[in-house]
Amino acid sequence: MASNSSGGGGSDRQRIAQQRLRIIAGHLRRPVDVDSTILAAECKAQDSKTDVSSEGRTVPRRRQEIMKWNGWGYSDTKFIFNKKGHAEFTGKRYKLSGMVMPALKDWLEDTFGSNLQHKSPAAPILTSGAVQPPTLNEAFVEELKSTGIPFSHDAEDRVFRAHGHCLHEIFALREGKVGRVPDLVVWPNCHNDVVRIVELACKHNVCLIPYGGGTSVSSGLECPPEETRSIVSLDTSQMNRILWIDEKNLTAHIEAGIVGQDLERLLNESGYCTGHEPDSMEFSSLGGWVATRASGMKKNSYGNIEDLVIRVKMVTPQGVIEKSCLGPRISTGPDIHHFIMGSEGTLGVVTEVTMKIRPMPEYQKYGSVVFPNFEQGVACLREVAKQRCAPASIRLMDNEQFKFGHALKPQVSSMFTSFLEGLKTFYITKFKGFDTNCLCVATLLFEGNREKVLQHEKQVYDIAAKFGGLAAGEDNGQRGYMLTFIIAYLRDFGMDYYVIAESFETSVPWDRVLDVCRNVKARVVQECKDKGVQFQPLVSCRTVGVPGDGPCQMNKGSEPCSSTGNEAREGEHANWGSILFSFLFLHWLKLHFI
Amino acid sequence: MASNSSGGGGSDRQRIAQQRLRIIAGHLRRPVDVDSTILAAECKAQDSKTDVSSEGRTVPRRRQEIMKWNGWGYSDTKFIFNKKGHAEFTGKRYKLSGMVMPALKDWLEDTFGSNLQHKSPAAPILTSGAVQPPTLNEAFVEELKSTGIPFSHDAEDRVFRAHGHCLHEIFALREGKVGRVPDLVVWPNCHNDVVRIVELACKHNVCLIPYGGGTSVSSGLECPPEETRSIVSLDTSQMNRILWIDEKNLTAHIEAGIVGQDLERLLNESGYCTGHEPDSMEFSSLGGWVATRASGMKKNSYGNIEDLVIRVKMVTPQGVIEKSCLGPRISTGPDIHHFIMGSEGTLGVVTEVTMKIRPMPEYQKYGSVVFPNFEQGVACLREVAKQRCAPASIRLMDNEQFKFGHALKPQVSSMFTSFLEGLKTFYITKFKGFDTNCLCVATLLFEGNREKVLQHEKQVYDIAAKFGGLAAGEDNGQRGYMLTFIIAYLRDFGMDYYVIAESFETSVPWDRVLDVCRNVKARVVQECKDKGVQFQPLVSCRTVGVPGDGPCQMNKGSEPCSSTGNEAREGEHANWGSILFSFLFLHWLKLHFI
Repeated sequence: MASNSSGGGGSDRQRIAQQRLRIIAGHLRRPVDVDSTILAAECKAQDSKTDVSSEGRTVPRRRQEIMKWNGWGYSDTKFIFNKKGHAEFTGKRYKLSGMVMPALKDWLEDTFGSNLQHKSPAAPILTSGAVQPPTLNEAFVEELKSTGIPFSHDAEDRVFRAHGHCLHEIFALREGKVGRVPDLVVWPNCHNDVVRIVELACKHNVCLIPYGGGTSVSSGLECPPEETRSIVSLDTSQMNRILWIDEKNLTAHIEAGIVGQDLERLLNESGYCTGHEPDSMEFSSLGGWVATRASGMKKNSYGNIEDLVIRVKMVTPQGVIEKSCLGPRISTGPDIHHFIMGSEGTLGVVTEVTMKIRPMPEYQKYGSVVFPNFEQGVACLREVAKQRCAPASIRLMDNEQFKFGHALKPQVSSMFTSFLEGLKTFYITKFKGFDTNCLCVATLLFEGNREKVLQHEKQVYDIAAKFGGLAAGEDNGQRGYMLTFIIAYLRDFGMDYYVIAESFETSVPWDRVLDVCRNVKARVVQECKDKGVQFQPLVSCRTVGVPGDGPCQMNKGSEPCSSTGNEAREGEHANWGSILFSFLFLHWLKLHFI
Repeated sequence: MASNSSGGGGSDRQRIAQQRLRIIAGHLRRPVDVDSTILAAECKAQDSKTDVSSEGRTVPRRRQEIMKWNGWGYSDTKFIFNKKGHAEFTGKRYKLSGMVMPALKDWLEDTFGSNLQHKSPAAPILTSGAVQPPTLNEAFVEELKSTGIPFSHDAEDRVFRAHGHCLHEIFALREGKVGRVPDLVVWPNCHNDVVRIVELACKHNVCLIPYGGGTSVSSGLECPPEETRSIVSLDTSQMNRILWIDEKNLTAHIEAGIVGQDLERLLNESGYCTGHEPDSMEFSSLGGWVATRASGMKKNSYGNIEDLVIRVKMVTPQGVIEKSCLGPRISTGPDIHHFIMGSEGTLGVVTEVTMKIRPMPEYQKYGSVVFPNFEQGVACLREVAKQRCAPASIRLMDNEQFKFGHALKPQVSSMFTSFLEGLKTFYITKFKGFDTNCLCVATLLFEGNREKVLQHEKQVYDIAAKFGGLAAGEDNGQRGYMLTFIIAYLRDFGMDYYVIAESFETSVPWDRVLDVCRNVKARVVQECKDKGVQFQPLVSCRTVGVPGDGPCQMNKGSEPCSSTGNEAREGEHANWGSILFSFLFLHWLKLHFI
């Protein structure tokens, strides 16, 4: 639009049209020519590391130095069966790291009837033979060299940028099946590097695929096999700095390649946070959140990405597009941000984002509630939404997820003692009236100043009590959220034993939530049967209210959400439930021959 | 996009592009062929008035039956000087109707040094000679006849649709200057009528301009003088029904031509409201709110139009565009609603809207606070925003607006007794420490359940006290909001005496609000001087916080707004002030010769 709106001339009618377009596009910054001197200067400034902070970034150019090439997360972190035959979580990075989960093995065998002698290990290393040689556009490469922007056509670098984290993508990699991959990977260091790269790509008819954190679950990173042009993966991971923080107006201007964990850590050092916490936040990038319209688990308190973004700078083949002001809302013309968000990298490369920031919350408290059955739990969530008093996060897990979480409880450890105490009580005393094959659990996270949090907590537990809900302790709650970051590792563990997992999500009016949960589960079971899957699948779901939120997928940061406690949006909050169907496990001895 | 996303074929690359587009556009409903039988059936249903309600609509096809052709609002309502030489507001429609404002005359003379003998009356009636004969597209007219959809090329009908309410538009009409006007006015009765009209317009190369309430201040209704095609004004005013209300999920499906006052009245009959109250709500239409991205005075509690809209149906030359589901948020693909909102009728005709509704508020309470000066008032608004406890509406008026409002106080009447008492007290007792040339006033509106409102009220008055603010009574507050609907009549009154008025708005970070107010006022004064305007202009402003809101204009429903009381959006709420500069009066004895 920026470029369209700048045009002129032509016939009268064109002129009129142009004029109207200019009015509607009045909120967009006029395109500017990239002055190479400015370009050099800016990039020098960025090299000189005078920015707010540039140390200790998580993601190196060569991701293989710390991450798996054919699975989720860090190379040093995975589930295994140890010598004693117990499931163990390796590494030192997570609270669960180094712990043993004695119950997991039996749960796997009992649930899927799988024989754990029966392994389906992933191809250990990438055989260079599996990767087709790069189709290089020599003229492009030559000019790229002259810019000094680093690039590589190393096979590993290319394979790392050829996929996101859809099940089928990881499945193929584990089988050693590598399809069409980028021919080149380039690492811009700043916005102007991206401008240069896009210019060269247009000039030489090269196909660009922006790459942020690589956690996409929309197939946005897949290279079309039919693509005959040279495909270049534009990896933003080195554009990872906070360029400035405005403490007066609580905004920060940030390069789009920074990953969530770095962004939060760096802001925390200054006493601030964005509050945007998608499940994938360890590895997903700010630019990725914008391009995929991400939402975070604390959206009730902070909003989704579209609520947090003030201004986006995007490089398109037609030029740089950006709003002309930092106003929080503009009533003249369409909102270009809402075309950038959800465009999945197809319209351009997001390079810089101005975001709202907030002082870190004074006080945080986890919690959990056990309900006699799912129906009661859903009724409670709906009431919480109606009363507009939802905590920062509230998730209702069904009985299957409750049992699964139970199977993941680690061996006694300082951290989990009280949790196990909780569990003892659980079966022995107050919960004994509950049928363990029916009960379900809600996990809670409260944030704010201490006094308000405690009030708020009481209000929510009082509502829960009306629906037969009983408080089940802080540790159960905290543990629930901690598992969020473990789930994808568990998916890979399952695949070692012929078990696959996927998730999908939708939103429906509250009065349809129970039907949809029941019917989808039944349909999945039926489909597996029809397709001759040997064992019955496990389908579970978790439900949350929606403050204006709809379908989104796991690695995109699908998260529970309910009312914001905002008197403002009653209709909105009270009336939609979001359902994440997940952990759909299949024993696919037959399935993978289909 | 709907149509693009449905295409296929072409080369491999086109096919890939199409496929990606289909994914991104997955949330859009596939275009459907309009089946004329369905069409007939639906329209019959609509004629049979079986819808939720279709009685007592405000706006007739022939607007001239009740409204002014060259000024704001109802024909029977205007300001005049009565026989006693006092300003009087005629008619019976408003609380102020029939009342006398003794102070207004002196205020006018003193403020502008204008001689009220010196009149600049508007051309009383429309002389048909002033209107150029219609350029009709016979083929289009013939086919239009066959559809049975009513239309007219009567001169008055056409002039009524040729303008919005920008100052220059009304000014020209008062001078009897009528430029290019639509050649034909057509009144569709339902969505399918619009589909038919747009089809015919495309087929016969006729230019369509959608017309809702005619309150546009973006020149969106002006006919380009250069336009050689036949221009048809598509008047949605007869598409004014609520098609259904879903009380379970608090949504309503409504035809886009309904005006605000009808929509609220009809919903109120069922115990609901939308809470969307732009200044123009008496006459502006739902479709207009969507096309112009309107905001309302209670946005703190209900949100802006983009927060209230669940689904929009728009007829474009490429077909009907509409989301495929009613989900409150979709994370896959761009949000097409944000391209429809702000498009000002340039992309298509909005025909139906599904909107959130809410139960009517239990309790409403007005209020007002007087501050010793504007600086203190701004500091208070900022603090209210920071503490996230803003009422449904809070507006801070500067000293000029305070004096102006004072000049509008009506002669004693039951309704205003206590107000006058308030004023007495005002000068005589507690406010005597204040300099009447410095003090400023904030008006407040609280909504919710009674107990919460009273708590909330106390909290806000406590904050105000910290900034030297003193409560000045409910009536002052209520009166302030009542004047909202009178202002445009007052603009026309001023024009009778060579006084013109306009307004404009912007948003800036809180720390810039005072500078911007001061500098803009100074600049306007300077510009008038440079242009040889005989008398000094009066520039006043009112300031409000912004819950994510930016520039918008008076008749679009520019309204005060501050924090939503939503813990969620601190950064957002605490950090932007919106400023409406208005009532810029000029004595233009010279000006209009420039």
